[in-house]
Amino acid sequence: MDCNQQVSAIVQQAKACCVVMRQLGSATKSGVLLEVARQIRSRGDFIQQENRKDLEFGRSKGLSPALLERLELTPKRIEEMATGVEEIVALPDPVGEVTRMWRRPNGMQVGRMRVPLGVIAIIYESRPNVTIDAASLCFKSGNVSVLRGGSEAAHSNEALISVFRRACVAKGVPAEVVSSLGTTERDAVQALLKMDAYVDVVIPRGGKSLIRNVMENSTIPVIKHYEGICHLFVDRAADLEMALRLTVNAKVQRPGTCNALETLLVHREVAAEFLPKVCDALTQAGVQMLGCEETRSICPQVKSATEEDWSTEYLDLILSIRVVRDFDEAVAHIEKYGSHHTDTIVTRDWETAHRFVQQVDSSSVMVNVSTRFSDGFQYGLGAEIGISTDKLHARGPMGLEELTTQKFIVFGNGQERT
Amino acid sequence: MDCNQQVSAIVQQAKACCVVMRQLGSATKSGVLLEVARQIRSRGDFIQQENRKDLEFGRSKGLSPALLERLELTPKRIEEMATGVEEIVALPDPVGEVTRMWRRPNGMQVGRMRVPLGVIAIIYESRPNVTIDAASLCFKSGNVSVLRGGSEAAHSNEALISVFRRACVAKGVPAEVVSSLGTTERDAVQALLKMDAYVDVVIPRGGKSLIRNVMENSTIPVIKHYEGICHLFVDRAADLEMALRLTVNAKVQRPGTCNALETLLVHREVAAEFLPKVCDALTQAGVQMLGCEETRSICPQVKSATEEDWSTEYLDLILSIRVVRDFDEAVAHIEKYGSHHTDTIVTRDWETAHRFVQQVDSSSVMVNVSTRFSDGFQYGLGAEIGISTDKLHARGPMGLEELTTQKFIVFGNGQERT
Repeated sequence: MDCNQQVSAIVQQAKACCVVMRQLGSATKSGVLLEVARQIRSRGDFIQQENRKDLEFGRSKGLSPALLERLELTPKRIEEMATGVEEIVALPDPVGEVTRMWRRPNGMQVGRMRVPLGVIAIIYESRPNVTIDAASLCFKSGNVSVLRGGSEAAHSNEALISVFRRACVAKGVPAEVVSSLGTTERDAVQALLKMDAYVDVVIPRGGKSLIRNVMENSTIPVIKHYEGICHLFVDRAADLEMALRLTVNAKVQRPGTCNALETLLVHREVAAEFLPKVCDALTQAGVQMLGCEETRSICPQVKSATEEDWSTEYLDLILSIRVVRDFDEAVAHIEKYGSHHTDTIVTRDWETAHRFVQQVDSSSVMVNVSTRFSDGFQYGLGAEIGISTDKLHARGPMGLEELTTQKFIVFGNGQERT
Repeated sequence: MDCNQQVSAIVQQAKACCVVMRQLGSATKSGVLLEVARQIRSRGDFIQQENRKDLEFGRSKGLSPALLERLELTPKRIEEMATGVEEIVALPDPVGEVTRMWRRPNGMQVGRMRVPLGVIAIIYESRPNVTIDAASLCFKSGNVSVLRGGSEAAHSNEALISVFRRACVAKGVPAEVVSSLGTTERDAVQALLKMDAYVDVVIPRGGKSLIRNVMENSTIPVIKHYEGICHLFVDRAADLEMALRLTVNAKVQRPGTCNALETLLVHREVAAEFLPKVCDALTQAGVQMLGCEETRSICPQVKSATEEDWSTEYLDLILSIRVVRDFDEAVAHIEKYGSHHTDTIVTRDWETAHRFVQQVDSSSVMVNVSTRFSDGFQYGLGAEIGISTDKLHARGPMGLEELTTQKFIVFGNGQERT
């Protein structure tokens, strides 16, 4: 069987499971997920044993200690995965919710009901715990998942998927509701992206080349999880003490995430007062700063930023800083260089805050809070499959609801159209 | 300038207008649309003159009288276009609506606000009135549109777009908020489909080859408007008189639409009683029938259906008929051969109706009404850009709300993430 036939067989089996999944009640789904959590715990040794194969291979390939650390499944992390599944069990099941229903003049009732999307393919380059998160969220929302993780976590991912599938079978649900696409064949992804007859949506989470490849080759609808070039704008009417706290928090609290701050914009009227303070605080926090000429004339320790810096996602303790003439220049900078992910303003002026919310077109637009809050858990959505940087269907943090679609339901008593 | 550069220039100008469009208030947008309606009326002669060029070209190419009739812009149709724009003015503006807002434990408020999608490209093969409908709906929802109509209506479409743009300019809004991609260059569509940096969504409305081309070549998110292979299932507990009325209505009232009935499924227990009556009524209405062997054993006048017939959208006075063993076979038939557009059941049994609504995965699932109601106006959505056959973002009739996306808005007073 060639690669194309293998992938085709996997997605056809996945599609065939949709009819079963659509009819599973919440209680059954919860029973399966609790069994998944139980088996993650009871089969922790097996999971660690497979994980060690990835760690050894990673070491032999010369992976950095930081990456090896990310990859490792310690007993604590295995327990966290099990707890994560139990938290998903506790969330409300979105399937079957009638979000609205209204009556038409002819007596016919029209409503919208949440239903699963169908088969969801997820292509990701992340820690192995994403495998269990993604499979559990898809399952809870009545979807069948086809997972393709990074090659560096191949054994760990396969082990986790096998644990998930065993739990399904133990509860009488077909194993094929969760599948692995494998990781060795590079052609498998290319083949998958053409299977629009069987796969309803593909979610790529990762770097530019992964995302670009999916966009260019997929005939399946795509929801991208892409980079965050997030801005914080210190308005002339900002509480400068608050601006300093939020800048440091947004940059330093966890710099490797997509909602961490990458560019600080400072209104010219407060630059001379604010910049020395914030540069001191950032220096103390170990942040390297790259700035425009005006920033450097105030803080000579800041290195010079290139044009490219304004559109770079550092994911590290690096921050670019720019002084702007006024509000409009700040908004124009965000429009030109940003990635429309998360942008925040610090201001005490009501009118300025209002204009920022209206004019900035990003998935999260904030006033007087840290960009780091742009996250499904922080927003109270309960859990997230990721943060969509697309505009269609899901924008920003994607929870269980975004893993469903809505069909129209129409109830009548013999209405004909005239 | 080659074709690629031309298209690139058009979509870049369109993108640049998004900032302006985002900030237009409802009153300004209504003013522009009322001016569009006024100019459609006052420039009716010009519109008709350009339309005659298409009609002459169509005649010379040997277009059928039915197609020429569809293409013609009579004074009555021009007046209907103007009235249609005025009806869109009267609809509520979706932009800026905060659909939900909640408070988090740290005091931060999180909400979702409707905002325009951005630049919408629409590729269609339809009557020229779609040009004005589509441009008006996109404009009302704060979007910039790039339109590509069929070549047979090229002059009419260009004339209508020029009228729309003159009305914009007369009200101080840039003409580029509505653009034509032209129709002569076939390569223009191929170039457009790669302009993901400037176009936010592409909506293809038309036949299989158009849709397939867009799916296979677009790097831009796509919302398809594709075929409707709609079913009516006559359950054993059906009110047979109602089933007969709804079958005839769904097939005959306007057979050329995507929500017209294509396949009638009849429960075996009522087939002997129902089929002769419905076949008589359909014959009287001029419908040609193609059936399974069991149907033909009851109604010998019905011709034999091929396997292909079950997945054919006739868009004509032709109906395929199949006797099914039971409810499950009916649902399995719809799953296998349907296009997940609109499917209805006729039954008096509550449990059966309930199961149909749960198990059939179509954009509209109905009980005891005609499939012909699957339509934005009939559902009370006010207007529709079309009927999406996709699951992501918009499923079924797409109104103004589906031409928007929702961004998160977050208001705080200095919250940091810990």
